[in-house]
Amino acid sequence: MNRFRLDPRLSADTHEVCDLTLCRVLLFDDCRYPWLILVPRLEQTREIHHLPPEAGTQLLKESCRVAALMERLFTPDKLNIGALGNIVPQLHLHHVARRIGDPAWPGPVWGHSPRQAYSVQAAAARVEQLRLQLLLRDIETE
Amino acid sequence: MNRFRLDPRLSADTHEVCDLTLCRVLLFDDCRYPWLILVPRLEQTREIHHLPPEAGTQLLKESCRVAALMERLFTPDKLNIGALGNIVPQLHLHHVARRIGDPAWPGPVWGHSPRQAYSVQAAAARVEQLRLQLLLRDIETE
Repeated sequence: MNRFRLDPRLSADTHEVCDLTLCRVLLFDDCRYPWLILVPRLEQTREIHHLPPEAGTQLLKESCRVAALMERLFTPDKLNIGALGNIVPQLHLHHVARRIGDPAWPGPVWGHSPRQAYSVQAAAARVEQLRLQLLLRDIETE
Repeated sequence: MNRFRLDPRLSADTHEVCDLTLCRVLLFDDCRYPWLILVPRLEQTREIHHLPPEAGTQLLKESCRVAALMERLFTPDKLNIGALGNIVPQLHLHHVARRIGDPAWPGPVWGHSPRQAYSVQAAAARVEQLRLQLLLRDIETE
């Protein structure tokens, strides 16, 4: 039985977007960077190479889909993709759309500075935009 | 024709370990952290989702293999895996074995502090250890 439960620290710092086949998609609540996090809905997995091979492949597929969507919507200069997990052990994969001159550029966003939350309205609008795009793509690729 | 050429900044900061099917394996020259970098030997690819699907799958496979080897050799508290590329555009995937209490813990190693190079002897020994393990595993899985 899969008893997936989102880590409360991830929950506190994000807005839920939607569930893909394997992963929950979260919007990190920092309005300075488009920043999505994929969390495989599996119990107690901490490292990508601990995933069953088919789940690893699905994670890659969903990561590429999210990356392509972010590239299309936000035209970043670079995507930063990372699985760190030094603080939150639950496996989660960051996708951050970086722009030359953004607050942390060219350094990493992780550990740079406290996040700056979206307004309620801006968060709702961004979540809706992302959810529609991800669900639309689901219909298109069925 | 594949005109792969390693970015000179990656070359300057690393020791070459070996070539896997897709990727060149590099040891980052910082003796404070076991740190391996995979570079797909393809021209001008900057993002993982730009790779042909079969190359993406192969990158995942080689990443998992390197991660499992690092876990076995270095017993880290956490692996940090990341594709950043804000400074060096050539696609490269970091694998860093982190320990609680290491200089950057629990923050990211990227952007933390200047690297501390291995001695010539220590670098040669580590490269040899890694190369043997990766080539041995090649023979075992054939």
